[in-house]
Amino acid sequence: MENEEIIEEEPDQSLLTKRYTEKAVEFIRQHKNQPFFLYLPYTFPHVPLYASEAFLDKSLRGLYGDVVEEIDWSVGEILETLAELGIDKDTLVFFTSDNGPWLVKEIEGGSAGLLREGKHTTWEGGVREPAIAWWPDTISAGSVSRAVTSTMDLFPTLAGLAGVGIPDDREIDGYDLSPILKQEKETVRDSLLYYREDELFAVRMGPWKAHFKTVEKPYSGAIIEEHEPPLLFNIEVDPSERFNIAEDFPDILAEIKQVAERHRSNLDPKPCQLIKRLEPGD
Amino acid sequence: MENEEIIEEEPDQSLLTKRYTEKAVEFIRQHKNQPFFLYLPYTFPHVPLYASEAFLDKSLRGLYGDVVEEIDWSVGEILETLAELGIDKDTLVFFTSDNGPWLVKEIEGGSAGLLREGKHTTWEGGVREPAIAWWPDTISAGSVSRAVTSTMDLFPTLAGLAGVGIPDDREIDGYDLSPILKQEKETVRDSLLYYREDELFAVRMGPWKAHFKTVEKPYSGAIIEEHEPPLLFNIEVDPSERFNIAEDFPDILAEIKQVAERHRSNLDPKPCQLIKRLEPGD
Repeated sequence: MENEEIIEEEPDQSLLTKRYTEKAVEFIRQHKNQPFFLYLPYTFPHVPLYASEAFLDKSLRGLYGDVVEEIDWSVGEILETLAELGIDKDTLVFFTSDNGPWLVKEIEGGSAGLLREGKHTTWEGGVREPAIAWWPDTISAGSVSRAVTSTMDLFPTLAGLAGVGIPDDREIDGYDLSPILKQEKETVRDSLLYYREDELFAVRMGPWKAHFKTVEKPYSGAIIEEHEPPLLFNIEVDPSERFNIAEDFPDILAEIKQVAERHRSNLDPKPCQLIKRLEPGD
Repeated sequence: MENEEIIEEEPDQSLLTKRYTEKAVEFIRQHKNQPFFLYLPYTFPHVPLYASEAFLDKSLRGLYGDVVEEIDWSVGEILETLAELGIDKDTLVFFTSDNGPWLVKEIEGGSAGLLREGKHTTWEGGVREPAIAWWPDTISAGSVSRAVTSTMDLFPTLAGLAGVGIPDDREIDGYDLSPILKQEKETVRDSLLYYREDELFAVRMGPWKAHFKTVEKPYSGAIIEEHEPPLLFNIEVDPSERFNIAEDFPDILAEIKQVAERHRSNLDPKPCQLIKRLEPGD
């Protein structure tokens, strides 16, 4: 698809990353003299995996590594284009991903490294993603933020930086991250809510994360377990969520429960749009 | 202890890293005009953990992090002393560790990150360690070796570099790593043997690792499981040892079995010296 138009059926998938890159570079060249917004969602490393011939069997990490190296090449092409056109200092590039590894796909599903579990769960392996922001002269090279953020924050961040308004006829769940990017503030969120489908599973508050519910076998039957007291982890000390310390911090748990209550009392629930589409193995 | 002499009983453990550092720096200053060998085995991060007041509550990783940051400071003091004395280009500094995290000690036992299991097992989490070699002008800064090596290799490496012989009245299991450090060779070992106490548990050959035996509950009863066919992992592609691919690579397994057979046929077994000392919780 190009924007909302179907331009080709059953393309050679091994050429997708290359073709996206060429199209993205072409788009940037065409718009270099005006503000532009480019959203480039690579098909990979979602399965089925494909890399072009130039990258096949080149990495140490099998096909998955080849695919990631081609995406890395692609990002490099885009950054080089921006520099070549002299618009790199006026352009924010944000690189991130939507979820962790699809573990049942084994070696082709990726790895969450030291993080627990993967996609379709609210453990860190399912939800924590790399988030790299590049904007020479505005964002200090090599700076790291410990702020808790969400991909939902990208909408108000980009709208804010572009100087366009956001809709005021509805609640917007995202926050403008630009004070973090510009290192004016350490954080813009006190908490983050983790949903699985239409159920609130977990809440993050500073370094703390409380799981009210967790899921086992998310792809085959999805056994949901409720926790009372909730499981509590200090994610900064224990990013692998190995040690439940709920018993040691009842005050923190009470505070997190209040965050969840406040959220629920402000909520006007709508039917989950995703559920209808989800099928086993999806 | 200082060398083989007991100099103090029940010292204040929070001062140990600081005192080791002062002693090491003093030793280097005393020997700056002659060849010297300094072996500095820090007590920490072995439990019980202690950090000096200057490091307490300073890291994001709790007491374990504080302890590691103090060791990092200590290594910095030593490197700075070598530079200050102008002997940094004549001195090889090798930093490594003996085993992975003691998992039953939970948050105070450390973490193996994405590696499987911990101490007292032959999974990567038990045996794979950081190995950092620093020797300005001789070892290229930032270079990385994929060679499989062992702490047993340090003895012939250091003896070789010092120009002293190694005993020829016995088999030495280590290999001289200096061709790797100097980037003259990619590797000096074809294989590596993983023992638990006096049993051969696993064999590494290039990227492959075969487990003939594994242990469950290494600290409480130690249930040893034998595997036929052995479990087979490609450690470069799958460093977390998640996917047993023995069925897909019978030829590799056959070759690894030959490595084990050759080893056994050359072996003159001696009683395990460690077993006598090991007690539950040790």
